[in-house]
This record gives sequence, structure tokens and C-alpha cells, in this order.
Amino acid sequence: MSARPIFILAGLGNASGTGGASARVFAKAGYNIALIARQSDSIHKFAAELKTGETDAAAFPVSEYNYKEVQGAFHAVRAHWPNAEIRVALFNAGFGIWKPFLQITEEEVDRVTDTNIKAAFAFAREAITTFKGQSISERGKRGTLLFTGATASWRGNTTTSAFSAAKFALRSLSQSLNKEFGKDNIHVAHAVIDGGIVTDLSKSRRGEEWASDQDRALSPESIANSYLYLANQDRSAWTWELDLRPAHEKW
Amino acid sequence: MSARPIFILAGLGNASGTGGASARVFAKAGYNIALIARQSDSIHKFAAELKTGETDAAAFPVSEYNYKEVQGAFHAVRAHWPNAEIRVALFNAGFGIWKPFLQITEEEVDRVTDTNIKAAFAFAREAITTFKGQSISERGKRGTLLFTGATASWRGNTTTSAFSAAKFALRSLSQSLNKEFGKDNIHVAHAVIDGGIVTDLSKSRRGEEWASDQDRALSPESIANSYLYLANQDRSAWTWELDLRPAHEKW
Amino acid sequence: MSARPIFILAGLGNASGTGGASARVFAKAGYNIALIARQSDSIHKFAAELKTGETDAAAFPVSEYNYKEVQGAFHAVRAHWPNAEIRVALFNAGFGIWKPFLQITEEEVDRVTDTNIKAAFAFAREAITTFKGQSISERGKRGTLLFTGATASWRGNTTTSAFSAAKFALRSLSQSLNKEFGKDNIHVAHAVIDGGIVTDLSKSRRGEEWASDQDRALSPESIANSYLYLANQDRSAWTWELDLRPAHEKW
Amino acid sequence: MSARPIFILAGLGNASGTGGASARVFAKAGYNIALIARQSDSIHKFAAELKTGETDAAAFPVSEYNYKEVQGAFHAVRAHWPNAEIRVALFNAGFGIWKPFLQITEEEVDRVTDTNIKAAFAFAREAITTFKGQSISERGKRGTLLFTGATASWRGNTTTSAFSAAKFALRSLSQSLNKEFGKDNIHVAHAVIDGGIVTDLSKSRRGEEWASDQDRALSPESIANSYLYLANQDRSAWTWELDLRPAHEKW
Repeated sequence: MSARPIFILAGLGNASGTGGASARVFAKAGYNIALIARQSDSIHKFAAELKTGETDAAAFPVSEYNYKEVQGAFHAVRAHWPNAEIRVALFNAGFGIWKPFLQITEEEVDRVTDTNIKAAFAFAREAITTFKGQSISERGKRGTLLFTGATASWRGNTTTSAFSAAKFALRSLSQSLNKEFGKDNIHVAHAVIDGGIVTDLSKSRRGEEWASDQDRALSPESIANSYLYLANQDRSAWTWELDLRPAHEKW
Repeated sequence: MSARPIFILAGLGNASGTGGASARVFAKAGYNIALIARQSDSIHKFAAELKTGETDAAAFPVSEYNYKEVQGAFHAVRAHWPNAEIRVALFNAGFGIWKPFLQITEEEVDRVTDTNIKAAFAFAREAITTFKGQSISERGKRGTLLFTGATASWRGNTTTSAFSAAKFALRSLSQSLNKEFGKDNIHVAHAVIDGGIVTDLSKSRRGEEWASDQDRALSPESIANSYLYLANQDRSAWTWELDLRPAHEKW
Repeated sequence: MSARPIFILAGLGNASGTGGASARVFAKAGYNIALIARQSDSIHKFAAELKTGETDAAAFPVSEYNYKEVQGAFHAVRAHWPNAEIRVALFNAGFGIWKPFLQITEEEVDRVTDTNIKAAFAFAREAITTFKGQSISERGKRGTLLFTGATASWRGNTTTSAFSAAKFALRSLSQSLNKEFGKDNIHVAHAVIDGGIVTDLSKSRRGEEWASDQDRALSPESIANSYLYLANQDRSAWTWELDLRPAHEKW
Repeated sequence: MSARPIFILAGLGNASGTGGASARVFAKAGYNIALIARQSDSIHKFAAELKTGETDAAAFPVSEYNYKEVQGAFHAVRAHWPNAEIRVALFNAGFGIWKPFLQITEEEVDRVTDTNIKAAFAFAREAITTFKGQSISERGKRGTLLFTGATASWRGNTTTSAFSAAKFALRSLSQSLNKEFGKDNIHVAHAVIDGGIVTDLSKSRRGEEWASDQDRALSPESIANSYLYLANQDRSAWTWELDLRPAHEKW
């Protein structure tokens, strides 16, 4: 099993959204799966579910997203598969907060910077350090680092002062890293997810009708397929940023 | 052969660049190919070359790119395959002009607006009118309209006052159309090609060493594969814009 | 009177909006006023109205906005005041068209490119040529070229495919020129006017209540004051772009 | 003296740059000055220097920029002038860090988020809370909140992964707040300072020749004049963002 490359993910929720779908899509595409996620029953169950046939998978829980925890979890991933190459790293963690500005507490500002910025810096640092030690693949890459963005990555708005600030920061990080490490054949890409994603949570809130209408609701699997596409782009023409939205989304 | 969908292209040059590669990639993917291009021997030769096995292909020459000529050529395409569906339309035409502002003549301003803006409006009008009359495919789309952009689509610069103005206009058109026709399941996407593309011309200017270095030169086939990817995105998560550049490009 | 610098304007409407207010504000600030506008009684009346005390003013009518007419009018301005310096040039002309894409005719595409792009290229060419022949003022400038933009300069939308394409092009032109001619101490700036401006026309459509509510309606005089501010910025810290909107505007 | 409005500043350095010049310009324009800055001799000296004639000024030192310290300092300002109105608040603090990504430590990520993001959230919260309790001025505003941005607010780059992430976040905060509090007649604006500013530090590094060349070096006083202009814009046409650069800056 050691010849399979590793897909490492941070940000899984209960595995019903983008993170879970990405793990499944990359597993099917021939990757072993490392799951960094907040401690919960579901991440271990999900790792067990992924671990079938040729696919190896393991969970690396954190108590919360911050620089040190994410760094520690990444080290644990490398220790777990000492001879494997990590070829794709997806930072999908995010603390989402939609609130009028004056209701946002200091603790929420801390949490949004810890989760969406500092954890991302740690994850990116470990991913890039790892990639730099790896060979160039037949696609011309040492590795691909992916970031999940949102509409709020492109513009601030009345209830997104904290969320959008963090998402702008993440987008900038992605751009800087793409510019800095392209010369090392490390591909960094950012996806702006613009619309409601079908998850257990959004399904319970917005209803089955919405969730089953692919003109209006983002399918996690379609997002995951885009991540696989980005990972498979070759050195000659790769993408720093793309947006993803359902056909009928107003934007 | 009538069951094969049509891929219609405007902008072919001598078929050695993005237009030619896109025609080949879509032919291989099961499309018949309609080539709108300026009259030349090469477009007929190229149509003949594409026309092999199950692929049908035909050339629809224009004397120059402008509203009326492109509209006429598009009509000719529909008349040529009266029962076929046009599923993908790529506007790849462009008059590139890099000159200090005060050297740009009125004629060049005319040509850049004719080719890069007015011809694009005509092409888009015909494509969208056609798409609106078609059924929704299994991917959830009536059709996909693609535009080739450039670095100059994102920023003006010292020698691009005319080129960039036209490329900004084209990008805006793409965005407006994506917003207006998404509700009709028509997908409009714009690709920002950021770097030097390998063509016969660029090869002769910049040399074989550059052209064969996929870290520095954009492969037309890689660009074409991105267009195919965009055409294949489903209704649940589609992209309005992505950028493409070689790994070592400075940007 | 010859010592007064010239403020040259293209785009006046019936003098009740941005163009008219700008002419008044610059007249008051010590400029003589050259009005390029479509032929009408109102431009001659307005020129006469401006021509009081120390202010000289003259109208230079065009039959429509396009490259040649604007170029000719600009030449006439220089001939009219052969010894004066043109210090500020404002391109405020614009054909506004808000329509579903499929209703936009070829003639409308022509008109929007003629008025908003080609006339702008001619105006910019004449302004910059003129500025290059002038001395550097005490503010460190040979001249200031201003462009009036709109919300549509920043994003395309469902009814702005033509208008926004032209406004994107204009914004790009402004950026390219700022980059190209800054080294010659020529200042080029673009103002994104985001919201409804109080004019005779908008007043008749939206009513007096709206027009007198400065939280919701853009005052032409306030816009004009911003143009004067931009013209007065010194060489050490000048602005390429600013946006202007009323306090309560949603954006 | 109590009738004079307060200008509150966070971010002074040794008073030779943008912060110091802004304090001087607003003092001259009729404001009393509150200086939030890191503890040092220079801030007390500078407060004393400002305190002449009708101008009152006071220093409110912090040990470092973070949420709590800035919040505390802002409270101290209000306690110091209990009957005065704070009309303009400028967040000019910033930890600048230009380093290859892999050399940036966790501590530096903490500092850049503390200084450039968390301190900004605290400052903005206090400013907006204060403004909401104030009357609308004759210019139609309860108050103006200004943020100092940088080139890195617009794009990430090879040595700015941390700095740019924080500057993107700040820009987003400014945009969100402008959108959220415009309806309350609170004006929020962001200035992108694009180029080298003349300070004691930059003068010592880049030399007198550069510092005295206003075509190449940003004068702090010119920046300060732009801040005064923004504060003086009326409700009918105000600016969320402008950029400032010297005439000969390449960008």
C-alpha cells in the first residue's frame, strides 16, 4: 500500500460535505487518505469507511484548529506513513460566522483567525516543506496545495465582517504561495465556493427539495471533482483560482 | 454522424495554438468541429485533417473578424449541420497589439474593437440563441460558451492600453452572460491565459528550448484540456473564470 | 484671460449632471472651460452661462461621439486658446444601455463602443499629447486626465452586458495610461460612480423626494468636488481610482 | 477646548511617517488629537508638540497592539474627553513583515494577526460604537473610520505571504463595515498606499536623494491630506477606497 500517494485533508465536519466528498473522490483516484479534523466519533467512522480494498485511511484528530494542533497532526500523518509521498493537501477547515459586526465577540475574532488563518499557515508550511522534499511527478509537480474559499473571499458584506476578513486572508495566502513556490513546481490553488453546499446541516435547514435541486445547490462531489481536476493539472497550464457555483445561483 | 454534438470555434490562426489544439481535443472527445477563421489555406487543410473516422469538420472562413462576418459564419454552421446540436462554442479570436499608447492608430483601435469585442458580441449572441433552443444535457446544460482571456484581462499596463481595454470588455461580457443565462442552464466561462503559448510563431521567436520547457511555456493542448474540463462541468458546480499559467511563470 | 488654465470636458448631457457640475466647479476654481458635447441649444446656453467675470468658456459641439469627432473637437479647443495650457481633461461621455443581452442590436454595440471606448481613446490621445508638451506645474503635474466610471466598471450583470463591457474597457484604458504616463508626470484617474446621480432626467423619473435625499442620491456637485480634489493631488501621492456613492447605497 | 472634535489615531511609529503627519494635519484642521501607540518617549514628546494654541492632544500608550490593549486605550480616550465627539478614527497600525514563507515563525503569524487584524477589529468596534451614539454632522456623517492599506492589500506576492494575508483581511473589514454602517451615516474608507513612504527609517535606508524626490517617494503629509479629504467628503458621494502612489512608481 505504501506506493499510493497521500491526500491530506484538514476540515471534515461530519463528513457529509466538501471534505468528506473530497476524501472519497481522492480515495477512488488512488490516494490514501489522512483526515485532520476535530475529535469526534464521525471522523473515526469515516476513516474506517474509507479503508477498503486498496485504500488506506487514518484519522488525526485535533481538539481545535490552531497553528500548533494542525502542525502536530501533520507531523503525525508523516510519521504514520513514513515512506509515502503526500501529493495533495486540502485545507478545507473554516469557522463560519455570519453576524452583525457589533455582535461579534473577541473570542469569535480569535477563533476565526485561529481556524481560518493560523491553522492554514501551519498546514501550508507543513505541506510545502513536505512537497519540497519530494520528486517531481510525471505531471510536473512536487505537490498540490488546495484551499477552500467562499463568496466572502471576494467581497466583504454586511454580516461577514469577521468571516470575510479571514477568507480574504486565506485567498491572499494562496496567491502568495502560488507565486513563491511555482518555481519549485509546487501548485497552490484556491477555489471560491459561491453558494450553498449540500451537507446534512444545510439539508436539515433548507429542505430536501433544495438539496436535490442541482441547479441551486452545490454538490460536494462536484466540488471534489474540481479539486481532483486541479490536482491533475500539469505544470504547463495550472490554475491559481477558480470559482464554483450552481447554474441558477445569483451572484 | 448527425448525433455528434458540434464544437464551434472562432479564432484559429494557423492551427498551431490554442484554437487548433482545442479543435483536436474536442474532436477526440466526440464532437464535430466547426472552424470560423480568417480565410487561408491552413484552415481548409486543418478541417481536412480533423475529418477522420467518425469526426466531421468544416471551415467557415471570414475575411476579417467583425460583427456581421462572424454572425454570417455562425449561420452557415447551423445550415451546414441543420439537425445537430451545438454544445460548445469557443471564442478564441483576438487581435493582439502591444504598443506605446501614442503609436496606436485609429485603425488599430477599430480593429481591436471589431475583433475582440464586436465579433465576440455576435458570436455570443448566436451561441446563446442556439443554446436556448436546445435541450438540457445529462450534465444539466444547454451549452457552454467559452472565452479566451489573457493577463491583460486582469490589468492594464504600459504597452497594452488597446489590447487590455478590449480584453477587459470581453471578460465583462463573459461575466454578464454567465449571470444572465445561468438560470437557463447556459454555462459561460472565461479563461485567463497568463504567459506565452507555444505556437509556430512563438517557437520561431523564442526558440525551441523555451517551447519545449513546460515549466515556462503554455502547451496549447493543456489549455484545450482545460476547456474540455469546463465544458464537462455539471450544473451543480460550474466555473465562471479560471487562470492558466506555467509553473515557473512570474505573475 | 490667457493665463487661466483650461478644463476640457467631453460629455455634458443637458448640463444638469456630472459634466455640468464639473464645469461650474472648475470655473470657480480658476479654469476656463471647453465643452465638448453633442450639438444642442443647451451646450451653447451653458457656455454662455459659464462665461462670467474672469471665466472664459466655449462650446465645441460634435454630431455624435466617435474617434474622429472628438479628435476634431479637441483640435478646435487648442485652436481656440492657442496660448493656454489645458491642465485638466474629463472624459464624462457615455452611452448607457441597460437591456437583456438578446435585445441589444448591432447598432447599439457600435454606439457603445464608439461613445465609451473609441471616443475615449481619441480624447485620451489628444489630452496626453497636449500634456506632454506642457511644463510641470507646482503640484508636479503636466496635466490630469479623468474618466467617469460606474458600478458597471467593476462587475458585469444581467442587464449590462454591453454597458459594462464598455465601462470595463474604459477602466482598463485609465489604468494603462496611469501606468504608462506617470513617469511623465501625467496623472490619470478613474472614478467609479456607484449609484443614481441627480439630473433633470433622474429627478423626473425618481421624484423630488429621492433627489433631495443626499443619503440616497449622488449630488453632481459632490462628484465634481472629487474631480477637483483629484486634479489637485500632488505628484507624491496620487490616486488612480476611487469610488463614490451615497451613504445609504447598497453595494 | 471641548467643542473641538477628536481625531483618534492608532499607529504612530516614531511620528515621522503617516501617523504623525495625519495627527498634524488634523490638528491644523481643528481636531484634538488622541494618539494610541506603543509606549515610547517619542509618543509623549509628540503629544506635547501637538498641544499648542487651541489644540489639545494626549498619548494613550499600549504595550503592544492586540484586541484588549487597543480596546482599553480607546476607552481611555473617551474617559479623557468625556464630552467631546470623536469624529475621525484612523487605524494606521501595522506589523510589516517581508520574508520568504518558510522563514516566517508562528510568533510572527501571531503578531501580524494581533496587530493588523485583531487590533483593527477592536479599534473599529470602539469607533463604530462611539459614532453610533453621535449626531449627524453638517457633512451628513456620524463619523469617519479610516484604514491604512498597502500594495499588499491588493495582491499577495513572494515575500508577503503573512503581511498580505493580514492586509487583505483589513481591506475586507473596511469594505464590510462600509456596507454595514453606511445606512447609519458612518463612513468607512481604506487607502491603498502603494510605494515607499518617507520616514526617518526609510530615509536612513534609501537616502536623502530618494526621500526628497517627490516623484518617487510618498510624502506622509500628502497621504495625510488625502485622509482629511476623505473625512471631509459628504454623505452624497463618499469613497470606500482609493490608492495613493508617487508619480513615477511602477505598479
